[in-house]
Amino acid sequence: MLDFDTIAAISTPLGEGGIAIVRISGEEAVDIADKIFRSASGKKLNEVASHTIHYGRLIQPRTEETIEEVMVSVMRAPRTYTKEDVVEINCHGGMMSVNRVLQLVLNNGASLAEPGEFTKRAFLNGRIDLSQAEAVMDLIRAKTDKAMNVALDQMEGRLSKLITALRQEILETLAHVEVNIDYPEYDDVEEMTHRMLTEKADHIQKEINKLLKTAEQGKILREGLSTVIIGRPNVGKSSLLNSLVQENKAIVTDIPGTTRDVIEEYVNVRGVPLRLVDTAGIRETEDIVERIGVERSRKVLKEADLILLVLNSAEPFTPEDEQLFAAVEGMDVIVIVNKTDLPRKIDMNEVKQAARKHKVITTSLLQEEGIDDLEQAIADMFFHGELEASDITYVSNSRHIALLHQALQAIEDVQGGIVAGTPIDIVQIDMTRTWELLGEIIGDTVQDSLIDQLFSQFCLGK
Amino acid sequence: MLDFDTIAAISTPLGEGGIAIVRISGEEAVDIADKIFRSASGKKLNEVASHTIHYGRLIQPRTEETIEEVMVSVMRAPRTYTKEDVVEINCHGGMMSVNRVLQLVLNNGASLAEPGEFTKRAFLNGRIDLSQAEAVMDLIRAKTDKAMNVALDQMEGRLSKLITALRQEILETLAHVEVNIDYPEYDDVEEMTHRMLTEKADHIQKEINKLLKTAEQGKILREGLSTVIIGRPNVGKSSLLNSLVQENKAIVTDIPGTTRDVIEEYVNVRGVPLRLVDTAGIRETEDIVERIGVERSRKVLKEADLILLVLNSAEPFTPEDEQLFAAVEGMDVIVIVNKTDLPRKIDMNEVKQAARKHKVITTSLLQEEGIDDLEQAIADMFFHGELEASDITYVSNSRHIALLHQALQAIEDVQGGIVAGTPIDIVQIDMTRTWELLGEIIGDTVQDSLIDQLFSQFCLGK
Repeated sequence: MLDFDTIAAISTPLGEGGIAIVRISGEEAVDIADKIFRSASGKKLNEVASHTIHYGRLIQPRTEETIEEVMVSVMRAPRTYTKEDVVEINCHGGMMSVNRVLQLVLNNGASLAEPGEFTKRAFLNGRIDLSQAEAVMDLIRAKTDKAMNVALDQMEGRLSKLITALRQEILETLAHVEVNIDYPEYDDVEEMTHRMLTEKADHIQKEINKLLKTAEQGKILREGLSTVIIGRPNVGKSSLLNSLVQENKAIVTDIPGTTRDVIEEYVNVRGVPLRLVDTAGIRETEDIVERIGVERSRKVLKEADLILLVLNSAEPFTPEDEQLFAAVEGMDVIVIVNKTDLPRKIDMNEVKQAARKHKVITTSLLQEEGIDDLEQAIADMFFHGELEASDITYVSNSRHIALLHQALQAIEDVQGGIVAGTPIDIVQIDMTRTWELLGEIIGDTVQDSLIDQLFSQFCLGK
Repeated sequence: MLDFDTIAAISTPLGEGGIAIVRISGEEAVDIADKIFRSASGKKLNEVASHTIHYGRLIQPRTEETIEEVMVSVMRAPRTYTKEDVVEINCHGGMMSVNRVLQLVLNNGASLAEPGEFTKRAFLNGRIDLSQAEAVMDLIRAKTDKAMNVALDQMEGRLSKLITALRQEILETLAHVEVNIDYPEYDDVEEMTHRMLTEKADHIQKEINKLLKTAEQGKILREGLSTVIIGRPNVGKSSLLNSLVQENKAIVTDIPGTTRDVIEEYVNVRGVPLRLVDTAGIRETEDIVERIGVERSRKVLKEADLILLVLNSAEPFTPEDEQLFAAVEGMDVIVIVNKTDLPRKIDMNEVKQAARKHKVITTSLLQEEGIDDLEQAIADMFFHGELEASDITYVSNSRHIALLHQALQAIEDVQGGIVAGTPIDIVQIDMTRTWELLGEIIGDTVQDSLIDQLFSQFCLGK
């Protein structure tokens, strides 16, 4: 175990609640707690068994003045979150209470933990690898059940195991190659080496490709599908938004700490987390057609993963509708012909012509018809009905995906090199590079600065 | 102990954080947890010692699918918050995670706890009295250190002890009176009874008065001093607001769950919590003079505990200034003559005449001068320098204050009755009423409906 300061932070979300936790981790955690805690039983925390809970008062050591009434948990290394001694102080969940407890702990020898520092220590002390550490934050930020499952799998080491196995295979291959070069006992050693290298490289390439296949879906599960609803005024954009939100419960509306500028709403459509962008705009105004011209709207459209384009069945297809289709060309679009409860005036052939290969759904949002079809279309579009398969190891993190792409390139260089008859020591370099790139995913071969940067994106107290 | 359902709720504030807690309380708490928890050690929670912590996974009992990675604390009755068996599940602090854990617990036999239900059980099961229970919520909502100390004292039973002692004294007095009436061994029994009653009633009246003396300050500490800044445009209201907020750190700006309509900011001025009302209005516009005419502004003014009236030293005293003084007549006002860095044009005699007995402070907020004086004036005005005395038992809760006033009336009826020669059994009734009214403070003589109503104001999970 490495030698670190003893750190402390508020580990529960800020706000009013029944309980808040100040967590302390490090060699002096128990000593610091003993300075400021008077247990009801009279016992010192230094004497108590690990993984036990103690009721008592926090006091100001100089004056013995009571600071809070608390429960203190003592967990000794190495069976803890950080693999260090951990003390958790459960106090009342008010802002004043928890800040006062944190201040007391800091005044008595702990340093304030940086964001993610507890998890960083779990990584640096070898309890979890980097991909597992990253999954902790994914888990906390998960917007749907399915996204949480992906994070949970990753946290439990599912991705790590695959990556570690691939790297082991590469190492063994490299060792074999080395042996063959150093001790050429047979005449056909070169041919044998090439054949083995080819076989192994093909297998590794196949495995990396398999992982990358899950990346698109994994990323959607992790980050949500950025969705924009567009349409002329009065076609039913607000109704569509409300239907989606009501039927699927908004998952996260207003998390403290998120910027309030970008108004987003998450809904869970058959396991697919839709991030409905600029919903405030839709609710407040119906002028998105005008706003199409505005830079910001174009940017929102450009960054969207899914466009829901709404038409009015009770009005003829207009040049403005045409313009909307032009604005979203080349994107993933579902066309919704709404207001089928009114007499139809739209020419469906025109719609189909404009829609080309985009799926067209008819709805009467007023009469709650067609929403199921829309939801099914969304699920099909991104998950081809595969969403329920639980034996897939998803890659969801952009950093991992980028590294897998680079590793794929490196292993394809190996393959190309063999075919081209490149000298074996050059091929070895590409093979080693594949091994290194995969290692960055689990944090085995990664720079300190990157680690610092990754953990700084964590929330405080984790 | 009473027989209740097993209840569960999220006990930490909602939002993103490192840790969240789902708390379960009741006879079946451990059984329910055992259904859904698989400890890493393989132990069942039914077998573990009380006040111990266990690492493992929550699972869906039907499928054994992993739901979360958790730490589970087992605390057996009666040494728990509710005096019932309590299990606390510490999971990752995301919305999805904690909701999923709560759902699992509810699906396996627990009922969703009502707001304050854990604390209500602590009260109903006799661990704490009603005034102590009420202090729990005061503690969570405390805006300053001092307010938290008042709540902490009350939670630890300081007020309860005083009230209980007074009630004991009343009971003993009533018993004596009874004895004297039933066994009149001496001729002068009536005179003796009168004398004793007079002495005791005087003492009780004095004690209640002593408590009530702390009420004004106690209430301010608990609820904050509702403060409004007024003044003509451009006199420096925003600067004053910013100075107060910056120098004293805004304590609570934006707690989830509070209504966003009323914009308030708390600052801690020498231990006095100022609740700066309608600060958004001040920041956005400078037109409070116009708004004086508006009903809402009048209401805000009327409900204020403290008015900070700002004048401009660099301009003559105007009829509008005069109007402002008229609008706050009879209120607690501090007059601030700002912009002393500029050449003085205001006639200080006019100011003093308008201010009458109100304190006048001169400031240059631009040059950060005079803020100390203002803060001292605020502290003096409401605490006469007594804020630091820590041996005072504050009464801070409006319910308690109202009951003390009624009890005071009842004991004064006793005193009046004795003087007027009212028959002793009538005096006894008033004495008993005093006992009952004091009993309502600690919840000894109180109706169920009131108890329900009191606890419903608690936050969820406490």
